[in-house]
Amino acid sequence: MISVDYTFVLKDVIGENGLEKIDIGKYENDVSKAIDTIIEDHEKGKLSFLNLPSDFSPVQEIESFVRDMPFSYENIIIVGIGGSSLGIQAIYQALLPYYNNIFGKPKVFFLENVDPETIYEFFENIEIEKSIAVVITKSGSTAETMSQFMILKDVFDKKFKEKASERIIVITDPEKGDLLKIAKKEGFKTFAIPQNVGGRFSVLTPVGLLPAELAGIPSRKILEGAESVLNKIKNKDIFKNPAALVAVILLEYFKRGRNIYVMFPYSSKLYLLADWFRQLWAESLGKRYDKSGKEIKWGQTPVKALGAVDQHSQVQLYMEGPDDKIFGFLEVKNKRKDMKIPEILEEYSSTSYLRGHKISALIDSEKKGTELALAKNGKPSFTYTFEKISPESIGEFFIMMEMQTAIAGEILNLDTYNQPGVELGKKLTYAFLGREGFDLSAVRDILTKVKK
Amino acid sequence: MISVDYTFVLKDVIGENGLEKIDIGKYENDVSKAIDTIIEDHEKGKLSFLNLPSDFSPVQEIESFVRDMPFSYENIIIVGIGGSSLGIQAIYQALLPYYNNIFGKPKVFFLENVDPETIYEFFENIEIEKSIAVVITKSGSTAETMSQFMILKDVFDKKFKEKASERIIVITDPEKGDLLKIAKKEGFKTFAIPQNVGGRFSVLTPVGLLPAELAGIPSRKILEGAESVLNKIKNKDIFKNPAALVAVILLEYFKRGRNIYVMFPYSSKLYLLADWFRQLWAESLGKRYDKSGKEIKWGQTPVKALGAVDQHSQVQLYMEGPDDKIFGFLEVKNKRKDMKIPEILEEYSSTSYLRGHKISALIDSEKKGTELALAKNGKPSFTYTFEKISPESIGEFFIMMEMQTAIAGEILNLDTYNQPGVELGKKLTYAFLGREGFDLSAVRDILTKVKK
Repeated sequence: MISVDYTFVLKDVIGENGLEKIDIGKYENDVSKAIDTIIEDHEKGKLSFLNLPSDFSPVQEIESFVRDMPFSYENIIIVGIGGSSLGIQAIYQALLPYYNNIFGKPKVFFLENVDPETIYEFFENIEIEKSIAVVITKSGSTAETMSQFMILKDVFDKKFKEKASERIIVITDPEKGDLLKIAKKEGFKTFAIPQNVGGRFSVLTPVGLLPAELAGIPSRKILEGAESVLNKIKNKDIFKNPAALVAVILLEYFKRGRNIYVMFPYSSKLYLLADWFRQLWAESLGKRYDKSGKEIKWGQTPVKALGAVDQHSQVQLYMEGPDDKIFGFLEVKNKRKDMKIPEILEEYSSTSYLRGHKISALIDSEKKGTELALAKNGKPSFTYTFEKISPESIGEFFIMMEMQTAIAGEILNLDTYNQPGVELGKKLTYAFLGREGFDLSAVRDILTKVKK
Repeated sequence: MISVDYTFVLKDVIGENGLEKIDIGKYENDVSKAIDTIIEDHEKGKLSFLNLPSDFSPVQEIESFVRDMPFSYENIIIVGIGGSSLGIQAIYQALLPYYNNIFGKPKVFFLENVDPETIYEFFENIEIEKSIAVVITKSGSTAETMSQFMILKDVFDKKFKEKASERIIVITDPEKGDLLKIAKKEGFKTFAIPQNVGGRFSVLTPVGLLPAELAGIPSRKILEGAESVLNKIKNKDIFKNPAALVAVILLEYFKRGRNIYVMFPYSSKLYLLADWFRQLWAESLGKRYDKSGKEIKWGQTPVKALGAVDQHSQVQLYMEGPDDKIFGFLEVKNKRKDMKIPEILEEYSSTSYLRGHKISALIDSEKKGTELALAKNGKPSFTYTFEKISPESIGEFFIMMEMQTAIAGEILNLDTYNQPGVELGKKLTYAFLGREGFDLSAVRDILTKVKK
């Protein structure tokens, strides 16, 4: 349901900044080896993300859990951050009406950032008695999530008394972590994030699927969409595998000085997919060392832009600025809803040409216009075309991006699945909060200089 | 009310990637000349953005208009895009409760993107009879705005009949453009965007001030905040002028290969200020040619990140990836609201250290932890500290960023106020929509190659 068109990266079309097919084709061995490694790691059980779309048992559990819920609810509160939030936000934006269904029910809310002002305002206003909460952290110990969970638990306990435990659902590691222990003690229903699936690769686990189902989105179809494309993204022919193709295009352009990858959906509904992807690409591939210990400081910065909005903000820079970007558009072929611009105001030149057009014609024309103008300026771009926004196509996109990232990581010979760079900041935060066993010794040198 | 701390760009503190004071001080003449030119252009009337904070007559008009409105309203619909939307979104996010006051009244909505699905869903659900609309376009002809205005006008005409014109307010050029003509004919109330104030510099005109006042935010205070800092941002001593200081830091780091500027608010309320700034910096300074016609392809890509959320998405890349970024944090000293983490769950190590802390302590610790960890890795950053989020501090930030951008543009010797790079895309869009006088001849060469 999603196709990739790379016409506007080709040298024949955009000139000297373009690629020849051989520039892509030369990665054939790299891609082949990468795919072998990824599949092998899955068969060995070292990795699991690619196995998720073929296993419908979590979906069955989710479906029956939601079907059998003993009460109704009007608010879903998601407590989570990063990989425990971004995928859910993307699913809701794409598949619920308007923004987070604010005109309808159930409404969905996120306790994500530890922003004191918004958290206060949330608890001041939310109708707790109509709410359920889903608390998500793979480690079971994320500071932002645990602190908000503690506030929420306290509020739920006071409101629901002994019934509070029915209203809190936990998604975490199946075997370890404090949140799992708490859940067992309190009697919260728990769902598992399988071993060997990292947070940023977890959207096709209950992390994404349970919130979807709770909001009335058929989680099974998200998984079916992902499953439908499995063979395609394992294909070793780069030109027949969109995950490999885009991985190679992005790697090649990074080598050529394009350290910024702009993901540019021409659809408000797909904007947060770019935000979800931003974590996946940045955290997986932004690495100081490769697997052999060599310093590489690799990292292509993913930037999200929104069409047509950012034509009025970023396109001036994209057109005329440095040759440091590669653009990936997302477009939607068949819109689920559309509106016609009414046949009024015929006497003005800036309205008469719009009359009678559909809004879809306007946004489609803007995308084509921007793409061609960039091409004319020698700026490379490619396009993902969604046949339609649906649970299936969103699922397909998730697994395609995950495979693309995994392939890129193998070709770069780095550890795609760790995040050693965030440890120091976390430890310092703990130290500032007085957590036992943590101190500021790692930055004592800097602190001394600052105080001078 | 806003101070800048540049400790963590200093070589003494962060090592070889840092700057010495002389690296900043050497811009003394450049800055002095730039400020002279900007002030002179204002005195001559060539530019106006810096004059806005001293002129309270638009605010008076806005105050009495809002005070005397003959009906009440529960929904404010803003129709505008780019500079006619981003500043308003930033004001609302900072100064209305929760997100766009969705728990209260008036609620605020944006018709910005020409996304057919969200526009359909909006009109399907919005209670028109409780709504007013503000239609904003400097040129009076922006395609996205005019098309949505046409739909809205049609809907309002049907609902309110001859009273519709009371419900639509127009902000546009005071002398020209189709929207002005339509407003006069229909009897809409109009407010002016002064001559010589471009869209992205217009937030301190009625563009930002009227929507603020309509939502109950005292627009006068926004302007007062901006006025309070005028002398400071005209100071020729770089180290006493935060606008000049940051301009110089960013220019110097761009020269040193840092083509990405991450604006990193540690506050959900200030996140959209980064989005507003993104247009200002990108569109003003992303230029192919300087004023002498020399090709420069300048452009530092502004990226918005949100603390603490993006610690779980981007910080891995920021810590370990290429040395291609300079970071500007925004932090808030005194929170308007706060919450205490309850003293529960003492028996778990991942909750016991959080007990009794305020949420503000957590986010402040995370900011300090991230800043120090970046510094330890030799990554430069500076911080804007807001004493408090208020109409005054938001106004101050707006004018400070505008002056910073103007100074940078003068030092780079480019035209800060035009956007020639967006013209081609616009013309092609018109051509695709069949607008008279527009065709695809500019990209015929590319289209021929694509068809092959």
